[in-house]
Amino acid sequence: MKDGSSSGVLKRERVREHLLGLIEAGGPGDPIPSERTLCAALGVSRPTLRAAVDELVATGALVREHGRGMFVAPAKITQRLAPDDAAFTVPRASGSWSSTVLESATVRAGARIGRRLRLSPAAELLYVARLRLVDGSPMAIEHLHIPADLVGAALTPEELEAGDLYDHLREHHRVHVQEATQSIEPTVVSEDEAALLDVPVLSPALLIERLTLDTAGRPVEYVHSVYRGDRYRIVSRLDFTRDGLVTSSTEGDAY
Amino acid sequence: MKDGSSSGVLKRERVREHLLGLIEAGGPGDPIPSERTLCAALGVSRPTLRAAVDELVATGALVREHGRGMFVAPAKITQRLAPDDAAFTVPRASGSWSSTVLESATVRAGARIGRRLRLSPAAELLYVARLRLVDGSPMAIEHLHIPADLVGAALTPEELEAGDLYDHLREHHRVHVQEATQSIEPTVVSEDEAALLDVPVLSPALLIERLTLDTAGRPVEYVHSVYRGDRYRIVSRLDFTRDGLVTSSTEGDAY
Repeated sequence: MKDGSSSGVLKRERVREHLLGLIEAGGPGDPIPSERTLCAALGVSRPTLRAAVDELVATGALVREHGRGMFVAPAKITQRLAPDDAAFTVPRASGSWSSTVLESATVRAGARIGRRLRLSPAAELLYVARLRLVDGSPMAIEHLHIPADLVGAALTPEELEAGDLYDHLREHHRVHVQEATQSIEPTVVSEDEAALLDVPVLSPALLIERLTLDTAGRPVEYVHSVYRGDRYRIVSRLDFTRDGLVTSSTEGDAY
Repeated sequence: MKDGSSSGVLKRERVREHLLGLIEAGGPGDPIPSERTLCAALGVSRPTLRAAVDELVATGALVREHGRGMFVAPAKITQRLAPDDAAFTVPRASGSWSSTVLESATVRAGARIGRRLRLSPAAELLYVARLRLVDGSPMAIEHLHIPADLVGAALTPEELEAGDLYDHLREHHRVHVQEATQSIEPTVVSEDEAALLDVPVLSPALLIERLTLDTAGRPVEYVHSVYRGDRYRIVSRLDFTRDGLVTSSTEGDAY
């Protein structure tokens, strides 16, 4: 085990904690003291402080405004996961979600997506790329793939932009979603995505992939999405059972 | 709605799908055709192809080896979430997890962590920074904060490095973990973290924070960790109930 003072880990932890304390004591948009002031107060070098600030900027807790200083970032949207206790209700996502269709086309599934949707590679899919916004601010870019025969001719842009897709599938196409497998990985935003999401190129983001099944166990949707890392987080609840397995209950929102 | 061909979104989607198809058809370490070959095969420009490759490198699906070309990346470690059906068993994480203690110290909680652990800011905590490895490869850096009075004098490095922490807390300190709230956000790796995790600086990573409670509802652990984005993903299962709420069951591993 390394000696505490020489490894620097504890020192960096203390700087991080101090900055997070300032952030939590303030509110979105509040100024943070200058790097120089913080170095003096904490007794650390400028590189040490800057590294800690950089991490908090990367993860969307602080915002640097050129020439103006550092500020507490806006609060994040939370995909909230909570116990599935029947008595426990969680409101849907904070903020009002809307969509803008970027592109819509009928395409062949191809081998990879065909496998996921249990279709022939030649099967027709509706491919839709849409920008998801919360209260008018871009939040995510979604790429949807839905078997064309599930939705008849097509989903119009109006249908894709107005309200909840799953509600629409149920009410207008008799498709009842039952469950989904979702995979979450970190990534960075490409140039094109940065322009759409209004964030710097290469900022951290979440790559979320989902395969959705209906009540008959049939795959009805394959989606991969990029969510802004600075405005989005996922919170889950884990329950540790006695035999050492971990089960978790979640309640999501914002789809 | 924009015309499909002019927005470029569908074109980029096709390039991505093609690359992912090559990756899935191959295995870890297999070569991918050169960018020049791919551009010709797909009929796209070099910048378009390069952007797609960059994204897959960022998320850990492809590896670029200087002077040698591109290769399928190693498979990711999955924090697996599955239904909590009693009949469903999921094996613990693939690979053998171990730990190296980077630093260990007794510190005061401070206001922020004190609030989370429901302690006075002056209360003593055991702070442990440790590197988590899978089959000897660095996977994550964890920063643990445990109320000192829960673990008596301290946890020795041997105790922290040998096996499952929760098992150890239960067997030697009569602490039974019951549940936890976990938050996941994307971030990038700092210089110091990059050196420890053996990844490039600013590569994508997952910032995971967890607050763990025991069977009496008492907070027993506050942890924040950085997991390599190129080797780690989180997979969850979502169940859509009829009233529109989403519940999810998960089974985790690798703690």
